[in-house]
Amino acid sequence: MAVYTDITDEELAGLLADFDIGAATSLKGVAEGVENSNFLLETEAGRYFLTVYEKRVREEELPFFLGLMRHVAQAGFPSATPIADRAGEILKRVRGKPCAIVTFLSGLSVRRPSVAHCREAGEGLAWLHLAAQGFALARENDLGQAAWAPMFAPLVAEAEGLKPGLAATIRSDLERLAARWPTDLPAGVIHADYFPDNVFFAGGQGVARFAGAIDFYFACNDAYAYDVAVALNAWCFEPDGSFNITAARALVAGYESRRPLSGAERAALPVLAHGAAMRFFLTRLQAWGATPAGALVRPKDPLEYERKLAVHRASPDLVLFGSAA
Amino acid sequence: MAVYTDITDEELAGLLADFDIGAATSLKGVAEGVENSNFLLETEAGRYFLTVYEKRVREEELPFFLGLMRHVAQAGFPSATPIADRAGEILKRVRGKPCAIVTFLSGLSVRRPSVAHCREAGEGLAWLHLAAQGFALARENDLGQAAWAPMFAPLVAEAEGLKPGLAATIRSDLERLAARWPTDLPAGVIHADYFPDNVFFAGGQGVARFAGAIDFYFACNDAYAYDVAVALNAWCFEPDGSFNITAARALVAGYESRRPLSGAERAALPVLAHGAAMRFFLTRLQAWGATPAGALVRPKDPLEYERKLAVHRASPDLVLFGSAA
Repeated sequence: MAVYTDITDEELAGLLADFDIGAATSLKGVAEGVENSNFLLETEAGRYFLTVYEKRVREEELPFFLGLMRHVAQAGFPSATPIADRAGEILKRVRGKPCAIVTFLSGLSVRRPSVAHCREAGEGLAWLHLAAQGFALARENDLGQAAWAPMFAPLVAEAEGLKPGLAATIRSDLERLAARWPTDLPAGVIHADYFPDNVFFAGGQGVARFAGAIDFYFACNDAYAYDVAVALNAWCFEPDGSFNITAARALVAGYESRRPLSGAERAALPVLAHGAAMRFFLTRLQAWGATPAGALVRPKDPLEYERKLAVHRASPDLVLFGSAA
Repeated sequence: MAVYTDITDEELAGLLADFDIGAATSLKGVAEGVENSNFLLETEAGRYFLTVYEKRVREEELPFFLGLMRHVAQAGFPSATPIADRAGEILKRVRGKPCAIVTFLSGLSVRRPSVAHCREAGEGLAWLHLAAQGFALARENDLGQAAWAPMFAPLVAEAEGLKPGLAATIRSDLERLAARWPTDLPAGVIHADYFPDNVFFAGGQGVARFAGAIDFYFACNDAYAYDVAVALNAWCFEPDGSFNITAARALVAGYESRRPLSGAERAALPVLAHGAAMRFFLTRLQAWGATPAGALVRPKDPLEYERKLAVHRASPDLVLFGSAA
């Protein structure tokens, strides 16, 4: 939720001169995206999003993210599509920073997903997995299981500061995950950050109709079922920390309506969900320690994911009740 | 540049249920407005702005601001217009805070106004003054000349910290302004914050066509020529601190194309411009001292207006060269 880059009318006009979308009629900085600066851009031709990539995004990875958005949109998946300029380029520069203009995607994200939202979200995730098939580029999951132990090593004191004794628990979790992590599950391009704020619904209040997904900047190649596990953690916990089995069952059923899980994928869900909780616990712990008090962006609470870790540690079978079996 | 209030899909649906503008299809927090939270709202009926008023806006003043926006829009001035709900109400509440839904105004503000922009801006300001005539409500200018000495009293140390010796200079300015301040100029509702970021232009790069004004939350009753003086300070200084007489002449000429200044108004421009610089110097000095290091919103530099004060102090006639005489 930040706008880092400021764009003048001259800079905007210079950028748009390369495109066939007319002159700008409106530009509003949007309080969305922590890694990028986002602007709602209106031109004579329509509405767009202008994303300026700040230093946290590695420029050499942008062709993967932008190409993926284009690939899934061309396959019919509802997502923002990068617009090419007259020379066919989608990765542009403004104010010395990489940027892209993408189509505007309508829809509202939900704060507290209902069971019906979870079903739709699950179906949308499978749709995305299928739409991404055939995409020519690949990107390693640099926040995958192999990365967790090295990520945790410098955060031991941080974890102890959060909760005494936590470091030993996390170390034991990491060993268990390393020993049991599945390596031969069906894999492909996954979203890897399929949280409610990255999924849009349409149809008005009370109606849950999947309308698309945004924010592909963690997308990578990994097991499809790991993406389901990330989503189970993000969508199916109640505010009180309990796991909502009905919501989880709906999410998996929605997923399987488009792409049935194999027996091996389903059996792996407990360890995948435990690992997915570890991944978000660790990145939140990193951000927590790195953020000075009173900073511009308040980091997300790592304890939320510490509690999810505890649920999966204590009751690995919970997630299995969420399967459509 | 901030979004303080977060609105859930349920809260938004509850608000929109009172209106005849259909269900929401998109809601984006916009990085605009320091006093309020602003959202770009799209519904089945069109595009709107949803403004949620934060604690700095006094709720009892909102009928003045919203009524004024409605009045000038009905008089044909291009500004965002508050939308009434089915019961005829324009001041609503969401999440316990006052809010309003206003129409979307297209246009781009300019960072570095050209002489042509200044002319258009001047004409737009006169248009606004005329469009506001007949508005039934009135609001005292609580940041007017009478307020400056009491505002400065607690800021003496702050001023000295900015620049040793500044407090005595400001005190002498305040005495001079009090002695010379005109009290019988033509008056009415003024914008009082007519800065380039509150004025929209249309027509694409290189074309300066006035497209409207926003942010009426400092509007009040005061001398029309004081509003011109605020605008001269805001639009006609170069980045190097020098006053651009050509730009000032264009701004005043644009203004006079709709509303000619009287001899008394023109003669008062030097003291009014000096006073207008004082008003923004003082509020920036207040904000500067009140803002902790590393805060969410970086305050504007009071020294920019200290330099403008110095220009008007040393060369009061400069502004007169900007008149169309």
